[in-house]
Amino acid sequence: MSTPMLINFTGGAIGEWRVTAQDCLAGTALAPVTRLSLAPPVAGAAWTLRGTTSNHRYTEAHEATALRAAQEGLGRPEARQAAMIAIRKTDAWWALAQDERRAIFEAESHHIAIGMDYLPAVARRLHHSRDLGEPFDFITWFEYAPRDAAAFDHMVDRLRATAEWRYIDREVDVRLSRS
Amino acid sequence: MSTPMLINFTGGAIGEWRVTAQDCLAGTALAPVTRLSLAPPVAGAAWTLRGTTSNHRYTEAHEATALRAAQEGLGRPEARQAAMIAIRKTDAWWALAQDERRAIFEAESHHIAIGMDYLPAVARRLHHSRDLGEPFDFITWFEYAPRDAAAFDHMVDRLRATAEWRYIDREVDVRLSRS
Repeated sequence: MSTPMLINFTGGAIGEWRVTAQDCLAGTALAPVTRLSLAPPVAGAAWTLRGTTSNHRYTEAHEATALRAAQEGLGRPEARQAAMIAIRKTDAWWALAQDERRAIFEAESHHIAIGMDYLPAVARRLHHSRDLGEPFDFITWFEYAPRDAAAFDHMVDRLRATAEWRYIDREVDVRLSRS
Repeated sequence: MSTPMLINFTGGAIGEWRVTAQDCLAGTALAPVTRLSLAPPVAGAAWTLRGTTSNHRYTEAHEATALRAAQEGLGRPEARQAAMIAIRKTDAWWALAQDERRAIFEAESHHIAIGMDYLPAVARRLHHSRDLGEPFDFITWFEYAPRDAAAFDHMVDRLRATAEWRYIDREVDVRLSRS
């Protein structure tokens, strides 16, 4: 995970993932699409969101150790469902100092702890977009088996009820399936 | 500072800043140039380094308050000297968790505290490059009056003697002057 990797999330009519739901929870929606591709963007796409994997921004050593022990990687054969959740945080969030953001993120909102409750069922990869000049700050990609879809919904509901989510002013949630 | 701003540092034969010294302290050097421009890159440049301003990564609230009270902005008429210091950190650094990096950065190396000792004489702006896929991770831009050049050298010497600098495997230091 050490070297940043640029990923393109391209919505349109082609791609390995079929869109089963596309919701806008805050701010401006994305144009509705039927397919999503994580391959390099192609002509005729409705939109492409870019993000890079990067180093941890809030995770502390004890949390990183616990995550590494419990999480599974992307691409598991049984993980035929996915979600792409793109969020933008407010100017007020970004004006906070590191310790203030960490306090909201974990001490108050338990973001890492909530995610831990759904490991190893839900695999995830976070992509940073803000410094690329993109319309969202983060794109998180999740993969899980159909039997874990309800658990995934529960996790997302818990996160959206946290103090951290009060700093989110744009959120698009795309659910996906592959055959 | 809340919205990231992309800056191009272009070395070549044109630009508002004249190169007075160009040193490589670790890793591979940059091609020698006579001028540096912070305007959008032009044809014929020897190299362009890109970086974005961004949110604080280590600075805590009490430190941010102290910095805001003491620092001055770029572009002061008397600040006719500048330095562009580009660094890359090792894979070992980026594999550390947030608390481990913060401990090296400030508790052990006093990076913020050392910089504070040279305020308001030395104005600075940090640019993040790693997530852009650039050859360096950070580009720091400093401006100071000619009378403060010795103090600036002293600050850089102190930083290079810290534990944090053991995680730096490429460093280029370009000193500049404008008329």
